[in-house]
Amino acid sequence: MSMSASLLKEFEAVVGAENVMTSEVDRQTYAYDGAVLEPVEPAVALRPVTSEALGACVRLCNENGLPVTARGAGTNLSGGTIPKPGGVVILTNSLNKILEINEEDLYAVVQPGVVTATFAAEVLKHGLFYPPDPGSMAVSTLGGNVAENAGGLRGLKYGVTKDYVMGVDFFDVEGGLVKTGSRTVKCVTGYNLSGLMIASEGTLGVFNEITLKLVPPPAAQKAMMAVYDSMDKAAASVAAIIAAKILPCTLEFLDKPTIQYVEDFCKAGMPTDADAILLIEVDGHPAQVEDDAQKVVDICKKVGALSVDMAQNAAQRDSLWTARRAALPALARARPTIVLEDATVPRSKFPAMVRDICDIAAKYKVDVATFGHAGDGNLHPSLLCDRRDKEEMHRIELAVDEIFDRALSYHGTLSGEHGIGMSKSKWMEKETSRATIEYSLRMKKAIDPKNILNPTKIIEGRG
Amino acid sequence: MSMSASLLKEFEAVVGAENVMTSEVDRQTYAYDGAVLEPVEPAVALRPVTSEALGACVRLCNENGLPVTARGAGTNLSGGTIPKPGGVVILTNSLNKILEINEEDLYAVVQPGVVTATFAAEVLKHGLFYPPDPGSMAVSTLGGNVAENAGGLRGLKYGVTKDYVMGVDFFDVEGGLVKTGSRTVKCVTGYNLSGLMIASEGTLGVFNEITLKLVPPPAAQKAMMAVYDSMDKAAASVAAIIAAKILPCTLEFLDKPTIQYVEDFCKAGMPTDADAILLIEVDGHPAQVEDDAQKVVDICKKVGALSVDMAQNAAQRDSLWTARRAALPALARARPTIVLEDATVPRSKFPAMVRDICDIAAKYKVDVATFGHAGDGNLHPSLLCDRRDKEEMHRIELAVDEIFDRALSYHGTLSGEHGIGMSKSKWMEKETSRATIEYSLRMKKAIDPKNILNPTKIIEGRG
Repeated sequence: MSMSASLLKEFEAVVGAENVMTSEVDRQTYAYDGAVLEPVEPAVALRPVTSEALGACVRLCNENGLPVTARGAGTNLSGGTIPKPGGVVILTNSLNKILEINEEDLYAVVQPGVVTATFAAEVLKHGLFYPPDPGSMAVSTLGGNVAENAGGLRGLKYGVTKDYVMGVDFFDVEGGLVKTGSRTVKCVTGYNLSGLMIASEGTLGVFNEITLKLVPPPAAQKAMMAVYDSMDKAAASVAAIIAAKILPCTLEFLDKPTIQYVEDFCKAGMPTDADAILLIEVDGHPAQVEDDAQKVVDICKKVGALSVDMAQNAAQRDSLWTARRAALPALARARPTIVLEDATVPRSKFPAMVRDICDIAAKYKVDVATFGHAGDGNLHPSLLCDRRDKEEMHRIELAVDEIFDRALSYHGTLSGEHGIGMSKSKWMEKETSRATIEYSLRMKKAIDPKNILNPTKIIEGRG
Repeated sequence: MSMSASLLKEFEAVVGAENVMTSEVDRQTYAYDGAVLEPVEPAVALRPVTSEALGACVRLCNENGLPVTARGAGTNLSGGTIPKPGGVVILTNSLNKILEINEEDLYAVVQPGVVTATFAAEVLKHGLFYPPDPGSMAVSTLGGNVAENAGGLRGLKYGVTKDYVMGVDFFDVEGGLVKTGSRTVKCVTGYNLSGLMIASEGTLGVFNEITLKLVPPPAAQKAMMAVYDSMDKAAASVAAIIAAKILPCTLEFLDKPTIQYVEDFCKAGMPTDADAILLIEVDGHPAQVEDDAQKVVDICKKVGALSVDMAQNAAQRDSLWTARRAALPALARARPTIVLEDATVPRSKFPAMVRDICDIAAKYKVDVATFGHAGDGNLHPSLLCDRRDKEEMHRIELAVDEIFDRALSYHGTLSGEHGIGMSKSKWMEKETSRATIEYSLRMKKAIDPKNILNPTKIIEGRG
């Protein structure tokens, strides 16, 4: 679909001609994200370089009834950044300034296009710590992280992106600047619209500035790998660690297929005959780290770990986490397509859920490898397949349906950290209620009467 | 205003005749809360004892266009629980069950009428910890805490109520049950309506069940009192503690008038000639507590504390916190009326703000004592007055106006923890923007078309 020349002229006046992109290559570039979904080409991509231009772009889209999708790095896994056909993509990557890092008051103010890892590194230079570490942080943007409420490996102890959002300024459909939250630890002035913006996937406003909470970094940390001949023993270790009132900053698991794919991929010396491994890191005061690490080793051994190896130095620690972070790329190259889910259950249900995933995969004869955040009950069942094979994809769909049903039966959730986007809205009502959908739809309609803000996502992609 | 006999019969059928209260005494009882505002009598107070009855009450109110105010203990300080004339008050104190405390998965599910302190004590019996500790926790309810996003003394390290809300089920105006959030650490299924409910003061729905996050309790803690001959030195100590990357769980200050009123009230042996004191508690692993406590003592002395006394045992520790918690009752008995504000600034601006409050009080010849959460920049300037003296109350109003202006000039907020309610909505736009008010009004209107849910609060009390 093409856009009228006069409207393109208007956009050029706002963002500059060099930042209005309509070529076939550009439109294809912004047609997809990390989800296994068909690409959809926008009519144009805009790259505003100032706040004013960003607000004006949103207003112009609304005036012209054009669907608009804000896009950071497009790493999300649920189709949250796939545009509407003929719509507008607003790129945030030129709005990438860290406006303030305040060491006295422990906050930072950023534009939405700042890359997560760049920000985390800059914060560290100031002697502070920004804990959220989504898998895509090397390229993902903070605006995208907030829009999706990105998780990561440190959820158990440190929480997720939402736990660090102190305030968000955003543009409404008329280009008005809505200001919410504060640079103070406590703020109850008006509705918690910052809270509402988190995980709203660009459907309720377009971020202008984000205020993020920072914390002092831990003084010490220790990482270890526990190896098991059964997933049940690994799961029992997780339960025993929590029962001992220890909150590791990271508590990850890899199942046997994942271990084998990772080893095949990066030759990290993983125990390929193990049924499961846990990768555990504790952090904090050095004495606490010593105590907690020793307790964790004792617990894992008592519960039946074949071995528990503590990283003896930074290089060994790094190699453990490199192996963990290799899980997704290792699995992704196994077959042409990977459907990476993030069904999440209360952590005590994680062993049952892992067993169920294996049973479901066997039932539908699909290839599955599961890894994830054991401490959060946040599993990543990864269904390895080929999207060109319709019959296989149908079995994948049935398996995913059943995985979600099982997660909900354990009081879990469809999505721990990837978002609903376009992929999962059809299951929304099952987890929540009809009233929840209606309430959300009424709210969305009032805030965005022409339905221009990232339409078809979350509730509107249903059915 | 009276209510039709037939409607009262309908309410009786829903909640039982004994739970429909229309006597003059009942109506006066629920006409006021902790704010300095005129009481407003409702037509009736209802006390549902089941979820179903609660939902039916809300639906009936909507069908009849009756304003409805949910009320826990009525301790809020901004008029959030003052009903509309002739409206309905729904009491939550029979919905007071702790439905689940889950030690494996570190969460609890409660009804809204559970008393905060009762809950915290019950959680402790299970070996876990619920950190939020608002001043009124001995009587306040968890529903009220979430509706107001109650703060407390532990905000600096542990955050406030919102940091512990994992999910909220609530009734919409039609009596439909909206389900949001999860029992999992991570959940991004749909809009973050739990987040939206926090601090919404009963204007967007009526809580049915709340899921709260629990954490392991700290293994040790140490409390101390640092005494200063100037507020600036106390403030410099706070800045130096944060700069040393120490996050005390509590970091409170009392100014000279507050110290004197407290000592007069409870003879706790406070240094009445001091200009300021800090009450500080560090917690965590025993070794960390030892280290942090010693560092805090050294910092305070270096910055110029006259003395720093460490509590040597639990009794001494308790007496420090009893003295701090006596601040409000001690000030409240000084004059017939106390206007207790909670203007909050980034913590580095706290000394400047305390000075400004003194200057403003002098300018308007009003009696002020200030205490509060220094670590959060959350001040409680307490204006001591007599509400029957119109001329004095006018000066109080001018002083409060100027205090808010000053807080905003420091990038602070009108309200750190007391809420907007009816008292502060006229300042809302100054802190946020016109677009923020419009956005909120549109959302409210869509969710509550007849404007029955606690009308006149937050944005609707404006002007």
